[in-house]
Amino acid sequence: MGSLHDGNSNGKVITCKAAVAWGPGQPLVIEEVCVDPPQKMEVRVKILFTSICHTDLSAWQGENESHQVYPRILGHEASGIVESVGEGVIDLKEGDHVVPIFNGECGDCVYCKHDKTNLCEKFRVNPFNKVMVGDGKCRFSTKSDKKPIFHFLNTSTFTEYTVLDSACVVKIDPEAPLKKMTLLSCGVSTGLGGAWNAADVKAGTTVAVFGLGAVGLAAAEGARTRGASKIIGVDINSQKFIKGQAMGMTDFFNPKDLDKPVHEKIREITGGGVDYSFECAGNVDVLREAFLSTHDGWGLTVVLGVHPTPRMLPLHPMELFDGRRIVGSVFGDFKGKTQLPHFAKECMRGAVNLEGFITHELPFSQINEAFQLLIDGKSLRCLLHL
Amino acid sequence: MGSLHDGNSNGKVITCKAAVAWGPGQPLVIEEVCVDPPQKMEVRVKILFTSICHTDLSAWQGENESHQVYPRILGHEASGIVESVGEGVIDLKEGDHVVPIFNGECGDCVYCKHDKTNLCEKFRVNPFNKVMVGDGKCRFSTKSDKKPIFHFLNTSTFTEYTVLDSACVVKIDPEAPLKKMTLLSCGVSTGLGGAWNAADVKAGTTVAVFGLGAVGLAAAEGARTRGASKIIGVDINSQKFIKGQAMGMTDFFNPKDLDKPVHEKIREITGGGVDYSFECAGNVDVLREAFLSTHDGWGLTVVLGVHPTPRMLPLHPMELFDGRRIVGSVFGDFKGKTQLPHFAKECMRGAVNLEGFITHELPFSQINEAFQLLIDGKSLRCLLHL
Ligand SMILES: NC(=O)c1ccc[n+]([C@@H]2O[C@H](COP(=O)([O-])OP(=O)(O)OC[C@H]3O[C@@H](n4cnc5c(N)ncnc54)[C@H](O)[C@@H]3O)[C@@H](O)[C@H]2O)c1
Ligand SMILES: NC(=O)c1ccc[n+]([C@@H]2O[C@H](COP(=O)([O-])OP(=O)(O)OC[C@H]3O[C@@H](n4cnc5c(N)ncnc54)[C@H](O)[C@@H]3O)[C@@H](O)[C@H]2O)c1
Ligand SMILES: [Zn+2]
Ligand SMILES: [Zn+2]
Ligand SMILES: [Zn+2]
Ligand SMILES: [Zn+2]
Repeated sequence: MGSLHDGNSNGKVITCKAAVAWGPGQPLVIEEVCVDPPQKMEVRVKILFTSICHTDLSAWQGENESHQVYPRILGHEASGIVESVGEGVIDLKEGDHVVPIFNGECGDCVYCKHDKTNLCEKFRVNPFNKVMVGDGKCRFSTKSDKKPIFHFLNTSTFTEYTVLDSACVVKIDPEAPLKKMTLLSCGVSTGLGGAWNAADVKAGTTVAVFGLGAVGLAAAEGARTRGASKIIGVDINSQKFIKGQAMGMTDFFNPKDLDKPVHEKIREITGGGVDYSFECAGNVDVLREAFLSTHDGWGLTVVLGVHPTPRMLPLHPMELFDGRRIVGSVFGDFKGKTQLPHFAKECMRGAVNLEGFITHELPFSQINEAFQLLIDGKSLRCLLHL
Repeated sequence: MGSLHDGNSNGKVITCKAAVAWGPGQPLVIEEVCVDPPQKMEVRVKILFTSICHTDLSAWQGENESHQVYPRILGHEASGIVESVGEGVIDLKEGDHVVPIFNGECGDCVYCKHDKTNLCEKFRVNPFNKVMVGDGKCRFSTKSDKKPIFHFLNTSTFTEYTVLDSACVVKIDPEAPLKKMTLLSCGVSTGLGGAWNAADVKAGTTVAVFGLGAVGLAAAEGARTRGASKIIGVDINSQKFIKGQAMGMTDFFNPKDLDKPVHEKIREITGGGVDYSFECAGNVDVLREAFLSTHDGWGLTVVLGVHPTPRMLPLHPMELFDGRRIVGSVFGDFKGKTQLPHFAKECMRGAVNLEGFITHELPFSQINEAFQLLIDGKSLRCLLHL
């Protein structure tokens, strides 16, 4: 808990514990940091739960240059309670239960007002950004020498307190269990939204999911809730098939066990290919397999995996004439502030199997162990308690 | 006219004039050929008009290996009258006015029954195919030594008589002027359908068309009829802008005259990019410009140009996350047999400016001059009279 929070911390600097990244792949260091009060249109949130998404892992490993900024507080999947709000914030107040979103929604720009995109002009996901959008400064600093600590993905949740633009904070029904709501903050929303919004999966159709982490399994869950008749899972880690089966997936392929490309096997068992495929592994070769595994004429591939590679799309322009389509989706095309509250309600009434995604729980102090669980392919989401 | 057509040619071999391709880029030779009677589900058509599409030009130049098959009768844009029908054909009879389609529609397969594709399982466009689908043989032969002459794109229209699968023949209202209907056979339908079906252009939106041949100008015409507010033309031949302007396009750029990439100029004059772009030049670098010229978040690029290059799509997977989409479209997504008759009626009542596309007319004997007009960028469509 922050050292100033016993009294009224409103408007003051808080000192609290955070897990700070000091270099690529170096264990995060839990240390005391200072957290400035929220400025205009900002919110300071007390984080109660946070979990680790593959995007944190990529950033921690410094997979692309934009990530190589230190010291930095990573993390973007979390839930918590508003501690205080800055000037001009009217839709949030102290005590509100909230979920941060790395892909914000200002509600006012041409994008937010357009019904076909969730990429806000000011607060869309931006891995290059490392400061607050409002004034270009950091709200975190080291306790010892007050040096700035950089932000990550509009959120920075590996800390007891963080400051976010209010456009990146979604108010959730206080009746909803915050622990589970953490999942809505990124991975599960991305996968489910990929199936619901980006693909708009129809009942009776066939689906293939490449990469059975939380994102992939959430895409499968989205397809299941829509009544897909066949949901095929592809992963190079066969352990993932156990969970996939428990969550209603129907068929599985480990490309390592096959003597031909997996798209050929998928076409064989689906009479020419699936209606929808989801790339959730973040690998361009997998992307090509996902593309080719859909039915020509109408197949749609939704790319959810992040691709930190200099390689271009391994597709030939003439392949577009076979009628296969491909789209990318950030945060499952959800407009976070507008749509997550309703989505949370759907989850509360049991429409979506959220339990399945929380495979581990650990105290915040063991965050490096939680990273290792994800690296080893053992966890979907390990929930860290702050 | 065919030598047997004065009597009843039904069921007999016809001798007639055709323009035969004997090698890549070699002038076509008008010579006597033999045309077999139509077999089961086939139709023999007396061609009255034919024109030259860029796809014929590419094939004639032998731009990719699949085209390098000789002797061959090229041509796929035409109109004519049914001379005789083979066994089992019930929807066409002698005397019907028809338009050939290179992308057929059997009406029975899973694709034909699916509402999202116009790629028939058996008769979809296939540049590799050089024989009749039914029996894998040729219906054309040389008059001198009866050697087979190969087919092209399900159609082969550079001849007084041709044989087609009935799936590739569309019956047109006999009141419709056949000359203009020739345009519906490929280029104009492809461009208009690209705007109407593939992009589904909405009123008040902005459009950019890359490559102002018949296909590109038809895409522009499709956008105009839908009420697009800005229709930008891009071509390296500024002469094309005269026709573009006459047909209602609003702005023009010649990339050769610019000091920056054309997509930057387009973004400047449209507040961030157009809603739809059309690639009608058949060049992957142009394709990238077309892609980047659309608005992030919702822009859609429709690829109509054919890309005979080994190069892959010059797009990075992460660029898909900016919300720009890209699709390819064959024949403007029209299901030919089902939709062209209605489209022809729309044209007859003046909904579409067809006149503008016929820039030249020549006798069939001057087919090589007609090719030259297209190469020189002087013609949109040169109508050849047979
Ligand atoms: N688009 C978005 O908004 C968004 C949001 C969250 C995460 N992501 C991205 O989604 C991806 C998945 O995230 P996650 O948290 O579920 O990751 P994860 O690490 O939990 O899961 C990835 C899965 O892919 C599998 N995999 C790896 N290589 C493979 C291969 N070659 N073939 C088949 N399977 C393979 C792994 O075994 C693992 O099961 C990551 O790239 C992440 O950055 C994108
Ligand atoms: N998808 C389909 O079903 C379908 C159908 C018909 C034609 N096509 C293809 O569509 C394309 C256009 O056909 P067309 O008959 O209108 O051809 P065309 O030769 O009449 O027109 C092509 C135009 O592109 C312009 N161009 C060439 N290079 C350019 C560049 N770098 N930048 C800008 N403009 C450039 C030319 O100046 C010309 O005006 C061809 O590739 C053709 O094969 C596809
Ligand atoms: Zn994430
Ligand atoms: Zn916005
Ligand atoms: Zn054509
Ligand atoms: Zn068919």
